[in-house]
Amino acid sequence: MNALTDATHHPALRSWVPSANLPGCDFPVQNLPLGRFRPRAAEGRELPPWRAGIAIGDQVLDLALARQQCPWPEDVYSLLDLLAQGDLAAFLASGRPAWRRLRAALSAALAEGSEQGPFLELCLHPQSAVEMALPLAPRDYTDFYAGIHHAMTVGRLMRPDNPLLPNYKWVPIGYHGRASSVGLGGSVRRPRGQVKSTAEAPPTYAPCRRLDYELELGLWVGVGNELGQPVPMARAEDHLYGVSLLNDWSARDMQAWEYQPLGPFLAKSFATSVSPWLVSLDALAPFRRPVQRPADDPEPLPYLDSAFNRAHGGIDITLEVWLQTAAMRQAGQAAVRLSQSNALDAYWTPAQLLAHHSSNGCNLATGDLLGTGTLSGSAPGQGGSLLELSLGGKQAIDLPGGQTRTFLEDGDTVVLRAYCEAPGAVRIGLGEVSGTVLPVLDPV
Amino acid sequence: MNALTDATHHPALRSWVPSANLPGCDFPVQNLPLGRFRPRAAEGRELPPWRAGIAIGDQVLDLALARQQCPWPEDVYSLLDLLAQGDLAAFLASGRPAWRRLRAALSAALAEGSEQGPFLELCLHPQSAVEMALPLAPRDYTDFYAGIHHAMTVGRLMRPDNPLLPNYKWVPIGYHGRASSVGLGGSVRRPRGQVKSTAEAPPTYAPCRRLDYELELGLWVGVGNELGQPVPMARAEDHLYGVSLLNDWSARDMQAWEYQPLGPFLAKSFATSVSPWLVSLDALAPFRRPVQRPADDPEPLPYLDSAFNRAHGGIDITLEVWLQTAAMRQAGQAAVRLSQSNALDAYWTPAQLLAHHSSNGCNLATGDLLGTGTLSGSAPGQGGSLLELSLGGKQAIDLPGGQTRTFLEDGDTVVLRAYCEAPGAVRIGLGEVSGTVLPVLDPV
Repeated sequence: MNALTDATHHPALRSWVPSANLPGCDFPVQNLPLGRFRPRAAEGRELPPWRAGIAIGDQVLDLALARQQCPWPEDVYSLLDLLAQGDLAAFLASGRPAWRRLRAALSAALAEGSEQGPFLELCLHPQSAVEMALPLAPRDYTDFYAGIHHAMTVGRLMRPDNPLLPNYKWVPIGYHGRASSVGLGGSVRRPRGQVKSTAEAPPTYAPCRRLDYELELGLWVGVGNELGQPVPMARAEDHLYGVSLLNDWSARDMQAWEYQPLGPFLAKSFATSVSPWLVSLDALAPFRRPVQRPADDPEPLPYLDSAFNRAHGGIDITLEVWLQTAAMRQAGQAAVRLSQSNALDAYWTPAQLLAHHSSNGCNLATGDLLGTGTLSGSAPGQGGSLLELSLGGKQAIDLPGGQTRTFLEDGDTVVLRAYCEAPGAVRIGLGEVSGTVLPVLDPV
Repeated sequence: MNALTDATHHPALRSWVPSANLPGCDFPVQNLPLGRFRPRAAEGRELPPWRAGIAIGDQVLDLALARQQCPWPEDVYSLLDLLAQGDLAAFLASGRPAWRRLRAALSAALAEGSEQGPFLELCLHPQSAVEMALPLAPRDYTDFYAGIHHAMTVGRLMRPDNPLLPNYKWVPIGYHGRASSVGLGGSVRRPRGQVKSTAEAPPTYAPCRRLDYELELGLWVGVGNELGQPVPMARAEDHLYGVSLLNDWSARDMQAWEYQPLGPFLAKSFATSVSPWLVSLDALAPFRRPVQRPADDPEPLPYLDSAFNRAHGGIDITLEVWLQTAAMRQAGQAAVRLSQSNALDAYWTPAQLLAHHSSNGCNLATGDLLGTGTLSGSAPGQGGSLLELSLGGKQAIDLPGGQTRTFLEDGDTVVLRAYCEAPGAVRIGLGEVSGTVLPVLDPV
């Protein structure tokens, strides 16, 4: 616990939803992430519209129903009204005081002993009985490169003598990504593209042979800024609603051939997957940490610096990649963990990424998605992609049952998970994003 | 005239709108570009909603009013209904047969001797009395690099021995751009960003000193494709509604420092400007040309090749950049032309850009905007940016009245213009996009 926490984070707080109090639960009453869901329709029945919900234990609280069925403090009705149509945008645009007010009201209502419990019990759906939507259809999607150990390892593969480019410790490097192909995962189709069999051979249009994942966090913009009006560091976090997991699927063979001089394009734009629950920055308050930089690194330029950021800019989130191959699935073998790293491995904080993005006057909007870049740890085996774990495809990694992998094969399921743990705080999780590789389609 | 033209392109066709028949007019009855407009409101009056319109001569035809006030062939009403709410998306999504049917109906109705003339006269607004909106709020914006002379000149500045990278003649190089800052121009704020005074000096966050324009065409997607379903070359043009001008404003000093290894980011995302009228590919039929490639260049890979593209893939559009400085404006001096080039200078055709973009399964959507990249001519003085015309800032260009420029100064107005001329065809124009550089704002 620290100076940023309040009653909603208290470790003794328990919910009247029993599953929320189980050890290892991602969604205790201290979390309260926001998402969009609908009950699964029976065969042949019309699909109900998407609704806004809060994850609590293994349940989803239907916020439109909760608005109707339950008495609330007077000022909370108007906040719930913003969510009543099943669209999160108006609420995310309403700003941190509104976000905190609803968080406090939901925390009280879902806590053990709440007088609202009997009303809200009627507004729960088991998570196993609903399907999830993208929390928002991302407007613009930007992917950063804040994972310095990833940048170093990938740089070393390409430039052994000079792995980190001179701008890296000054500029939060990023590029525009493709918004239309952001989804929730489930399945991902292996792409075709221009690839080369040898350095000398002409390229062919062929199925990707070096398909990879990238372990990232997604940062979701709540409040936008006007074109021409940069967001100062001191206010950057007021524009960020929260975080999800993000898998930046990557076709390494296509990327190597296409990326000079304008950066990755088709090697990324076939799919990006995010987890469905938006965990608010407010929920992450107990896990904020000072920024730690090597002593001889340059100080951030003033527009990327603030006292708050130095003291609390980092977020201690454990990040994991799990893999289950088709053969493992058939043999009844559970997924195996490929790597573990931490969001503190990022060189730039979420506030710095947002402030930099707007520093030229670029207008951000509610629903914009910012990827952090691959968050790898500093040690071998902590790489957040197969490119790193297999040393550029040169050293296969061993899997249970005798299989090996350098890159992903058809039928492989990649699962990203994340959670926060700290002394004196209740564990909270981000849930997961999962995707299974489908075989390439024949050309039309 | 060629195999692609029909009665709507006939050079003898004249309009009952007199200004449409004047020599040099961008919008004769052979053009019929689509846009969104509203009458300028008098001081203190409520702004009317945006409406769909067609430019004809110096007038705009209000399509919602025309739907109401004028008799139409029965099947045309449903097409006009798609445009009645002042949103172009539903019409653009309806596909080429619908686009052609409405074009034919409007051509007949606006032609000299039309029985609909007396009705439609009541549905015209002078262009000088309306303001224009973005034709569509672009969903995703992608910028290509199809101008080979631009790529060569810029490459030579950075890599004198190896100006064109090995992938250039195989891959239509492109990158994702920022959709939120696409606008109609008018004014553009000089951005701040990380710049370096010398190669050795640490960067500072300072006003851009090498502000530039880029002369491009914008291609607007009409019909989208499903994720995972590439668009084959043979159908690529069925997905493209038409073209506008595009100015890819660029901060060269920021770009030089930030762009490795992931491409341009903040050097571009502060502003992109497009012209307001969408000129359909159908209107451009008389100006289609065979693709001409040097004999020893590689053949396009099969997924980028089609018989139609070889015979008609190019479009003969003359492109121009004009500049008027603040001093010229004060002295009453007209804008001066800085360069002239042609869309045939592109190495890749619009169909190839779209087919490539979708070749990995990336889903394009109605309203997506694809920039061609800077379209420079092969000769010195035909560069579509100041970076090229000033040889990287090393050689100032002379302006009337004794001024010089290497890069843009505050108060400079950049105007891009484009038009098509060919024997036996009536000239059509794309109109123009204009932007004036505003001084940098103080930091917050």
